[in-house]
Amino acid sequence: MSKSPETPLLDRVAAPADLKRLDTAQLTRLASELRAETISAVSETGGHLGAGLGVVELTVALHAVFDAPRDKIIWDVGHQAYPHKILTGRRDRIRTLRQKGGLSGFTKRSESPYDPFGAAHSSTSISAALGFAAARDLGGTVPEGLGDVVAVIGDGAMSAGMAYEAMNNAGDLGKRLFIILNDNEMSIAPPVGAMSRYLSRLYTEGPFQELRAAAKGAVSLLPEPFQTGAKRAHDALKGLTIGGTLFEALGLSYVGPIDGHDMEQLMAVLRTVKARATGPVLIHALTRKGKGYAPAESARDRGHATAKFDLVTGQQHKAPPNAPSYTSVFGKTLVALAAADERICAITAAMPDGTGLDLFAERYPSRCFDVGIAEQHGVTFAAGLAAGGMRPFCALYSTFLQRGYDQVVHDVAIQRLPVRFAIDRAGLVGADGATHAGSYDIAFLANLPGFVVMAAADEAELVHMVATAAAHDEGPIAFRYPRGEGEGVDLPERGEVLAIGRGRMIREGRRVAILSFGTRLSEVSKAAEALAARGIEPSVADARFAKPLDRDLILRLAAGHEALITVEEGAVGGFGSHVAQLLADEGVFDGGLKFRSMVLPDTFIDQASPADMYASAGLDAAHIEAKVLETLGVASIGRRA
Amino acid sequence: MSKSPETPLLDRVAAPADLKRLDTAQLTRLASELRAETISAVSETGGHLGAGLGVVELTVALHAVFDAPRDKIIWDVGHQAYPHKILTGRRDRIRTLRQKGGLSGFTKRSESPYDPFGAAHSSTSISAALGFAAARDLGGTVPEGLGDVVAVIGDGAMSAGMAYEAMNNAGDLGKRLFIILNDNEMSIAPPVGAMSRYLSRLYTEGPFQELRAAAKGAVSLLPEPFQTGAKRAHDALKGLTIGGTLFEALGLSYVGPIDGHDMEQLMAVLRTVKARATGPVLIHALTRKGKGYAPAESARDRGHATAKFDLVTGQQHKAPPNAPSYTSVFGKTLVALAAADERICAITAAMPDGTGLDLFAERYPSRCFDVGIAEQHGVTFAAGLAAGGMRPFCALYSTFLQRGYDQVVHDVAIQRLPVRFAIDRAGLVGADGATHAGSYDIAFLANLPGFVVMAAADEAELVHMVATAAAHDEGPIAFRYPRGEGEGVDLPERGEVLAIGRGRMIREGRRVAILSFGTRLSEVSKAAEALAARGIEPSVADARFAKPLDRDLILRLAAGHEALITVEEGAVGGFGSHVAQLLADEGVFDGGLKFRSMVLPDTFIDQASPADMYASAGLDAAHIEAKVLETLGVASIGRRA
Repeated sequence: MSKSPETPLLDRVAAPADLKRLDTAQLTRLASELRAETISAVSETGGHLGAGLGVVELTVALHAVFDAPRDKIIWDVGHQAYPHKILTGRRDRIRTLRQKGGLSGFTKRSESPYDPFGAAHSSTSISAALGFAAARDLGGTVPEGLGDVVAVIGDGAMSAGMAYEAMNNAGDLGKRLFIILNDNEMSIAPPVGAMSRYLSRLYTEGPFQELRAAAKGAVSLLPEPFQTGAKRAHDALKGLTIGGTLFEALGLSYVGPIDGHDMEQLMAVLRTVKARATGPVLIHALTRKGKGYAPAESARDRGHATAKFDLVTGQQHKAPPNAPSYTSVFGKTLVALAAADERICAITAAMPDGTGLDLFAERYPSRCFDVGIAEQHGVTFAAGLAAGGMRPFCALYSTFLQRGYDQVVHDVAIQRLPVRFAIDRAGLVGADGATHAGSYDIAFLANLPGFVVMAAADEAELVHMVATAAAHDEGPIAFRYPRGEGEGVDLPERGEVLAIGRGRMIREGRRVAILSFGTRLSEVSKAAEALAARGIEPSVADARFAKPLDRDLILRLAAGHEALITVEEGAVGGFGSHVAQLLADEGVFDGGLKFRSMVLPDTFIDQASPADMYASAGLDAAHIEAKVLETLGVASIGRRA
Repeated sequence: MSKSPETPLLDRVAAPADLKRLDTAQLTRLASELRAETISAVSETGGHLGAGLGVVELTVALHAVFDAPRDKIIWDVGHQAYPHKILTGRRDRIRTLRQKGGLSGFTKRSESPYDPFGAAHSSTSISAALGFAAARDLGGTVPEGLGDVVAVIGDGAMSAGMAYEAMNNAGDLGKRLFIILNDNEMSIAPPVGAMSRYLSRLYTEGPFQELRAAAKGAVSLLPEPFQTGAKRAHDALKGLTIGGTLFEALGLSYVGPIDGHDMEQLMAVLRTVKARATGPVLIHALTRKGKGYAPAESARDRGHATAKFDLVTGQQHKAPPNAPSYTSVFGKTLVALAAADERICAITAAMPDGTGLDLFAERYPSRCFDVGIAEQHGVTFAAGLAAGGMRPFCALYSTFLQRGYDQVVHDVAIQRLPVRFAIDRAGLVGADGATHAGSYDIAFLANLPGFVVMAAADEAELVHMVATAAAHDEGPIAFRYPRGEGEGVDLPERGEVLAIGRGRMIREGRRVAILSFGTRLSEVSKAAEALAARGIEPSVADARFAKPLDRDLILRLAAGHEALITVEEGAVGGFGSHVAQLLADEGVFDGGLKFRSMVLPDTFIDQASPADMYASAGLDAAHIEAKVLETLGVASIGRRA
């Protein structure tokens, strides 16, 4: 347990209104205390540290200048909002961050009126902010009132098309709106793309010092958008001086770059824009991720996400892994395959580490493409690579693949292009909660004609599926696997190319067959053991494929058992639904079959450990066992699935 | 039948290679012939006219300078590619455009090697082109070879975030790549957004004439991206002179604006960039949609899409409608509701006419938001409006809603924000073919917790559902309806707020119950009549809701009949799958039920009339009747569904 820091000023802040009576020097001290409190809290809970530390001064300044919750402060992604949570009445629970029943690691509407719009996926804040601004101007009413709207968005998030769409619309509508571009040159990985280079150029070559002076003087920083005629020459020069013409081209007034850790400058600029803005203003603030905590500042990822850690040394307390993660097994397998096949290339959307492609990028830099937070482009770019004769692996988290869904349908599936989708974080993910759950990919992929959809039951299966995908040139193919450690099974020397649409029997039994799709197989097997101990010997099979289905296997299981139960880590509409469709089409239900399909429940499941989440979801061994007993009409153990 | 135009030069062009021996004057004449041929063909087939007419000279110039199919010319959307099809070996079939078994109205890989990447949805071309360029540079091989890559994209398509994501990546990778910005100030509707204004400014204020001269002289038009230091002042001045700094900020070399109808200028510029480019180049060409055909040029939509028409008068041959379209019923109903409710507002993604919101925009301009081709932003913007106390209706085609799927999940569903989704073009859509089919929305929405998902069985039902959605403040709600005319039923004076999750009985019968979701109800009713004539009296019900399901109704139908058949205009995973899940959970299958779920088949269905497409899909009255007979084990009429 870490010692709580001394925070005399922070102790007197019960709500943001209390900041109004502090002067700039006091606000600066308050920021120091807030930083210490944030570090202390995260040392106990783990979580996203670096991003919050980078915006401590900004958080204080925003709350000192604006009037939340009437004014809406919308944090993009929301993982940098721990200091904001501390200042907005949630300090007493800050040490429950990301724990079951505790504060969310992101902003969340249901948690506080100070979180006007929740987040977790990136690049949504400008759209949401513009919605609030439009609602305000139309006379919309909400209990807290509707005043100014501020979106705080990182430079990495600016690589997403959604942010551009929102700026394009904001610049057009011309509504009063504040966008703080929190430029720390670092999202999870270093940001990529031309926009990122453009931003760097703005401050590496711009007369930053002069601007600081200007900001301190609080001179007018608000050029009118779209000035015309003779004024253009003047403005272009101005653009040359302080940069930002790209944003001005989009109809935003550009202010910056300013020092996001200099309270005096922040207060001057925010007060000025608040007093004078009539339309949308972008304030470009430079910050340092991990600022003020040496272990974070010096870490490669600037302390992006951390386990619990020792305050003094920064040493993280991570339990030693029992087995390699699925992510690393994917990454290593792909690297090995790529050695023998120059057509293999890989695409990540700003998550080289998270997807295991960091290994691939290191070994085959020219074949690894980090497209930025840009799933729409990433998927179609992969389709272009496939059309050009390559074998692209598009590695995305299930929840982020949702961002590229139309491209999956329109550019990949309809054209039957052999893009390989490596779908990480399939199923429930733990501390990141409902926003990061990979619940829908089976459903939204398996009904696409010509798609092959696989799920790995364990890390050895994953190795086979990567090999299977590499060999599959006939059309699109996806394989899904969960967050976290594998089952600890032996890994094959090399992957075997699986027969498309063929499952495998795991255990031959009687009366009931359990057909698993994905890593629930281990829980199914536990349930089978428990049932065997009661004298019920279930058959167990691993479907491997949700599409194409193994018709023979499924019809055989249906014919040979009184009951058939499917289990998957996904919502209704996916594997079980396809099995049901087959059984219905074949008339299997006509004569009666105790069919059940165990899927994720119809609710967004809050953060907890993955095991707890699966228990809540009714998808652990105990629930599977209970479902079998209930289905067979055998007296249960008193617990209903 | 129209008379074919005289086309002596065009008659000698069998393939693009034949253009190489023509001089600029001949190419200009060829363009005239190509324009005449395009107009003549579309007068017979109907289709997208204006866009193709705007790029006739560009099409000729591109094929004269580049070497397709080795060089890849990728037409964004692809509806402007009729002249391209005529030049690339498809002239003999050009009068089959958009007909069953004929040429696609878009580019299509399976149709020709000259269509390296198919399209239909907007803004994918730069991503695909970059994929080809990357494949080329990695040594990818395809039968036609891999040379230069050219994306042709409209100014309207530039409002999509996907285009920005692709430019951001292209500017970063620095690969040789050509992007033709076909700027006609007009997509389907006039384009919106700050980018559009920016483009206008580039040519309304820029020294266009001087540039034309420069282009004709083929001087260097290729500034290096990201020049540094002292050169910046020079470049900024240059930017001021010829514009394009926004694109240069993104790492693209900008050339333009040039006159896209001036063959001499086009040839000079394309030859220059082809000879000299080392990285990505954006060529900004000004064109006029509908160019060269007076009736199109003077039409409000510049002849965007047209029925068959008289060549001389331009008069379109449209069959008089039998009933108002679903689209117009939606639009009018929303306008009526908005008169009494100031919170109602509407969002369209560049489709005010297509969605029926043109009416709304006219009456309530401040409450109607055209966000551009920007579904991601549009959905989250709507979520922001809802969070700000408004009642937003987000009107999108089913197929385009796929572009905003993550935003539906993350920003709307998880936050339970009452965004109303008006889902037009649900189901099969006719001449636009597979790319525009609305096949997946039931599946991808109905498994989202807290979502209400409705489908209108006829236009009167649609009126009720708009009213129901307006009144539903508890969370997200969607209602879907097809393209085309309604059933011709009487429209209610005002919509009734339906009970959430309650269906309705249409016809009481015995043995078999048919449970319809959506406008297949009329075919179900026809099938029921035919069955009744055979002495089989089916029960028929309209589910109205795929979520929440009407449990009582469904369980009652299952209990009271030997067979239960669901029918929907969507793929597996949707309504029928949810019904199957309920029946399984409730143990209804245990004792036997002849359950069938009629859904769209597992194939992308090519263009035809909607009736033909539904016949192919096995979802018309005849197939429903046959399915009932087969399910009941009654001798069929010899046709198997």
